[in-house]
Amino acid sequence: MYPEALELLIEALQKLPGVGYKTAERYALSLLDLSREEVDFFAQAITDSKDKIHFCAQCGNYTTSKYCSICMDQTRDSSTICVISTVKELIAIEKLGQYKGVYHVLNGLLSPIKGILPEDINMNDLFERIDDQTREVILALNATIEGEMTSMYIKGKLETKVKVSRLAFGLSTGGNLDYADDMTLMKAFEGRK
Amino acid sequence: MYPEALELLIEALQKLPGVGYKTAERYALSLLDLSREEVDFFAQAITDSKDKIHFCAQCGNYTTSKYCSICMDQTRDSSTICVISTVKELIAIEKLGQYKGVYHVLNGLLSPIKGILPEDINMNDLFERIDDQTREVILALNATIEGEMTSMYIKGKLETKVKVSRLAFGLSTGGNLDYADDMTLMKAFEGRK
Repeated sequence: MYPEALELLIEALQKLPGVGYKTAERYALSLLDLSREEVDFFAQAITDSKDKIHFCAQCGNYTTSKYCSICMDQTRDSSTICVISTVKELIAIEKLGQYKGVYHVLNGLLSPIKGILPEDINMNDLFERIDDQTREVILALNATIEGEMTSMYIKGKLETKVKVSRLAFGLSTGGNLDYADDMTLMKAFEGRK
Repeated sequence: MYPEALELLIEALQKLPGVGYKTAERYALSLLDLSREEVDFFAQAITDSKDKIHFCAQCGNYTTSKYCSICMDQTRDSSTICVISTVKELIAIEKLGQYKGVYHVLNGLLSPIKGILPEDINMNDLFERIDDQTREVILALNATIEGEMTSMYIKGKLETKVKVSRLAFGLSTGGNLDYADDMTLMKAFEGRK
């Protein structure tokens, strides 16, 4: 119904997560209203992100250089490595401003069902990173079946070489016992002090 | 916190309507996962839409040529002109498949508060289009204050020259009287048969 160039834009916008035809249509029409400069900035930002951003050669974080800003930061404690599944979690932890160690981003989790094996994610680089300088590996993976499985796998591989800890599980601060799911409640009991 | 190229992409995505930082972040991270070809297609679709799409010289619809596909269609009844405020409404009416006339897209509505005057929207072209061949002008504008004002203005200018009609207002089909707003209910009373 729309000119082809507009239908193609609506099609492209549907590649965004959770965006169906109606939302893509709304986005596309609003893009037409942008100025020439804004449209060029937009298209350039998309191309640049693909051209410039890749994974840190050491930890798997996003970077535009060989190593990411955290791995390059001499003030960080490189003997403590926090293992997470995505960069989004790294950002969430960094926002707390408490953690002073470094990270290892798996960019995925093990999943026999989806056929995701250790070699499909950034796992082997983790094992290669561990040396005499490493004091602790903190597993900060999701409390899902895949997260649990990945934690168990890493623990099995590393616990003879280095201290491996996991984030504490329990009720959310201000959380109501009634609303906690079974797994959370179980973990809260197990972890009681 | 993210590399600059990624923060710029997140900033760009926030130009989309209703998209804040969190949603833009989610979109940006998913764009990084697209293949080279998909990213190029995406960026190209955005640039193309700006380069190729403009307003039809006659009716204000989107087109990649001088005139839009509806104005060029010889089977349409060019003596009946339906006036709407945006192309989105044109698409909605076209999807019904009932209307066989042509359109005039104002690309806006009059608004003294926002300072939008007849010369700021595609209004004067409408008056210039009306000639002896025109049998009817159908006003299909929103039932808002701005829509009403715009309808009144066009009616005042055209009613001595041509038949001017308006879409019927009333309860939505299957609509519950309890839930109808005052304006709808009032219009439903006025338009009773």
